[in-house]
Amino acid sequence: MSTIFSKIISREIPADIVYEDEYVVAFLDIKPINHGHTLVVPKTACADALACDTETLARMMVVAQKIALALSETLSCDGVNFIMNNGEVAGQEVFHAHLHVIPRFTDDNALPKPDRKEYNEAESKRIQGLLMTTLTS
Amino acid sequence: MSTIFSKIISREIPADIVYEDEYVVAFLDIKPINHGHTLVVPKTACADALACDTETLARMMVVAQKIALALSETLSCDGVNFIMNNGEVAGQEVFHAHLHVIPRFTDDNALPKPDRKEYNEAESKRIQGLLMTTLTS
Repeated sequence: MSTIFSKIISREIPADIVYEDEYVVAFLDIKPINHGHTLVVPKTACADALACDTETLARMMVVAQKIALALSETLSCDGVNFIMNNGEVAGQEVFHAHLHVIPRFTDDNALPKPDRKEYNEAESKRIQGLLMTTLTS
Repeated sequence: MSTIFSKIISREIPADIVYEDEYVVAFLDIKPINHGHTLVVPKTACADALACDTETLARMMVVAQKIALALSETLSCDGVNFIMNNGEVAGQEVFHAHLHVIPRFTDDNALPKPDRKEYNEAESKRIQGLLMTTLTS
């Protein structure tokens, strides 16, 4: 499936590219949560993190660290969020996997704090059991 | 620095551990954004993604994918967020690096949509230039 990101990678449409290697391209998000917000995108399209091969995913994370260190050095940000939304209900808008690297500054209020839920112990043990069984099978 | 996560890894305090290998441990967040919310944590402590070695970071991401696939299979979630908050201003609360893997369900409203900013072209080109120079130096 061709998306806007494939067209950026092939230079059919312009973007502010900041990094490129064999596996990934990184460019500025045009609607940033903060200025400097960068997307790390695999050159070989996969829809989301669940569909990517592990080598590509690992490389995306290593490049996210490079970008975070560069944002810290150039923009003197005080923190950095890495966010990867997988699936429309998770907030994904372009269905070519991408990792958001977002510089944060004191009191920027850029990302609202989410509400947290509670567990009763039976429910957390039930889910733990399901995940353990699946992960070790 | 010893944190609550070091104590979970060493079994000094209990947690609902769902996965463990040579590099990482994964366990349920006790205050989940949704039930099934899992943290992927490196066994060798590093404060955040900027401070971790690349091999550890890469492994965290590959394990996050395993957890996401297991959440999808066991809880039939419709999407998954990966979130790594680096630094107090980014919402980090425990200063031992950790990657959140959060199952999402239709209309759960679990993570508020953040506001987006705009760029004027001069500003995006200025930041692109700074990042490119730093990333290729």
